[in-house]
Amino acid sequence: MSSVYSEIPGGLNAPAGFLAGSIFCGIKAANLDHPDLAMIVSEGAAVAAGTFTTNKVKAAPVRVSAAHLRAPEVRAIVANAGNANACTGVEGIENAKRMAHAAAQALGLKDRQVLVCSTGRIGVQLPIAKMEPSIAELALKVHGSGSSAAAEAIMTSDTVKKEIAVEVVLPSGTIRIGGIAKGAGMIDPNMATMLCFITTDAKIEKAELQKALSVSVEHSFNRITVDGDMSTNDTVLMLANGLAGNELLRVGTADFEHFQRALDHVTLSLAKMIVEDGEGVTKFVEVYVHGAASFSDARRASEAIAKSCLVKCAWFGGDPNWGRIMDAIGYAGIKMREELVDIYYDGILAVKGGLASSTPIEKLKQAVAADRFRVCVNLNLGTAEYNVFTTDLSTDYVTLNMGE
Amino acid sequence: MSSVYSEIPGGLNAPAGFLAGSIFCGIKAANLDHPDLAMIVSEGAAVAAGTFTTNKVKAAPVRVSAAHLRAPEVRAIVANAGNANACTGVEGIENAKRMAHAAAQALGLKDRQVLVCSTGRIGVQLPIAKMEPSIAELALKVHGSGSSAAAEAIMTSDTVKKEIAVEVVLPSGTIRIGGIAKGAGMIDPNMATMLCFITTDAKIEKAELQKALSVSVEHSFNRITVDGDMSTNDTVLMLANGLAGNELLRVGTADFEHFQRALDHVTLSLAKMIVEDGEGVTKFVEVYVHGAASFSDARRASEAIAKSCLVKCAWFGGDPNWGRIMDAIGYAGIKMREELVDIYYDGILAVKGGLASSTPIEKLKQAVAADRFRVCVNLNLGTAEYNVFTTDLSTDYVTLNMGE
Repeated sequence: MSSVYSEIPGGLNAPAGFLAGSIFCGIKAANLDHPDLAMIVSEGAAVAAGTFTTNKVKAAPVRVSAAHLRAPEVRAIVANAGNANACTGVEGIENAKRMAHAAAQALGLKDRQVLVCSTGRIGVQLPIAKMEPSIAELALKVHGSGSSAAAEAIMTSDTVKKEIAVEVVLPSGTIRIGGIAKGAGMIDPNMATMLCFITTDAKIEKAELQKALSVSVEHSFNRITVDGDMSTNDTVLMLANGLAGNELLRVGTADFEHFQRALDHVTLSLAKMIVEDGEGVTKFVEVYVHGAASFSDARRASEAIAKSCLVKCAWFGGDPNWGRIMDAIGYAGIKMREELVDIYYDGILAVKGGLASSTPIEKLKQAVAADRFRVCVNLNLGTAEYNVFTTDLSTDYVTLNMGE
Repeated sequence: MSSVYSEIPGGLNAPAGFLAGSIFCGIKAANLDHPDLAMIVSEGAAVAAGTFTTNKVKAAPVRVSAAHLRAPEVRAIVANAGNANACTGVEGIENAKRMAHAAAQALGLKDRQVLVCSTGRIGVQLPIAKMEPSIAELALKVHGSGSSAAAEAIMTSDTVKKEIAVEVVLPSGTIRIGGIAKGAGMIDPNMATMLCFITTDAKIEKAELQKALSVSVEHSFNRITVDGDMSTNDTVLMLANGLAGNELLRVGTADFEHFQRALDHVTLSLAKMIVEDGEGVTKFVEVYVHGAASFSDARRASEAIAKSCLVKCAWFGGDPNWGRIMDAIGYAGIKMREELVDIYYDGILAVKGGLASSTPIEKLKQAVAADRFRVCVNLNLGTAEYNVFTTDLSTDYVTLNMGE
């Protein structure tokens, strides 16, 4: 089956019937004059799906949104940057509920039809009294081309906004999917300090939307790591309002498959943008492990390599130090036989059967000198495979994270 | 029971009947004029014990020494720095055996009475032909005050030599324990890129020596982490020659307990020296987790905190960012309740019941500004505890590891 989606402009607003926008509500430093509150609203009834951090320390908005997501219909998302509303106890939960309530009041919705997100510093209470009037004001200002403004408002240490949209021409109508995301720090598989909001005008039921989103997140946001730290706030939310007028998407049909592929493209593209814009990143690296005895082994080996400080420092320095990769595979806790391992840098053989290949070191250095490269490990034991998108570890990463 | 050991000078040579020394055999750059081969020899028959890396990619000398350790008597240790003899296949095993053979020939021993170690770069064959004459020469030169020379010869990116000795006055005679170690990079629990050699003139049987050493390593070298990378070469070896003339040490006796405590002091002191001299380290931090539901939970939580890049960067910057500590506990995969967690920096309350304490931030900053401090986490769920000795993550760490 060939891909039938294509990229289009418009971000969150590309699907019919979605409004978005941003405002400055006083959390980020005022002198930056940078919006710090984003809102996304569906003009018609919509169903929602979401995935959240698996960290046991969950931010208040994660708890509140997970509860609201049980509602049959959801119409809006409100998100702030600059304050994570995490480790804030009962007061934090109350404040997250007040965020939802302020939006619901202004939009004429029930509280549980609004999802809330926060990102930023942990352990500080939200300045909710300042935020409430801004939320009410923003609800009146969201519009049909506010996607970029929303994408900018959720940025923390991100340096570029992350936005994409695709359309899929189905026999029963053209559907569209749009998304924005933020990332930068605490990026690790199983949801990072990242927020991602996706809209679609496809007609699909809630349960099947959740299924499609969960599959897609598993192959995108759950496969990225910058620093190995999993955040308290990671959230992916998706709204589907059915305004495209397509036939209801059903699991198992060709149309559903097209929808899934288009959604996968949106999530993977946003996930890669997050990695490329990771704190202090100079290299974008795909680690691909195959020939593993089990899926879990392939995953563990990929993640051990992608999280090794020593491997990542070597990449930063353009050093194809495959010994550190062998070392990481060795402590990954997987079934492996040293003498069977092959390692390639961008298709260039570095290790054959656990030993240095005859490839001149200069050729390997050329591969690692690139801004983007792929490390491919064949364990030669089985057929399982996994991949992770990651980065180097730079002096800038340390500098960016050493202070407040 | 009070401690009856006291520190004495002499290192490896403090116990009766041990000779040591070093030589330049041509592995490290010649212009450094730095010895790169160390030897330790017991003048009399000795029993040996050892613990090795649990990495599945094991260096050749680890495999050879583990096999030789089965011999009832061992008399010598030969170790080189600058080349790890890891990922070197059949030729690597052959070269490790040749190291042992060269020493055995010169010392009039059987090959299996010699243990071998290597540390340095992975994936390069040993220049064994150059090393053999140097090993033979060194065997004739070991002497009764060569401990420091041996400690210097095994250094790689270490900046100071690591050496200690203690004596214990037992009713049946005074026994001594001496040790040297090297560390610096790839330092992680379950044995790091570290070598440690310990001598004692205590009279003890092989099995009981192994028991004492294993317990001691579990509470020292297995509780240190600099960068979370576990090496292929980590080895602790201990020789006991019985020349102190004490009554045979038996598990369960008070004398054995005194011996164990003295040995624990030696291993913990050397382990701490390794952490303090870790690559680019500016802070020495003890992470202590108690009130955990299980030992494994306490261990996982300690290690998650000690390995978090974000936590370590914050320490480097003198930022008491407890939110990152809460975050690490949350993803450690343990039983925890956010609202029960208390966190202290050097006895100063930072988090009470999962929330920011009322301690002024300046007081917490003062604690983190110190070169050494302790982070204490009470999960308030049970009685299990664990501690890890670790460091910050500095820009210098990255710089030191970015090239060859």
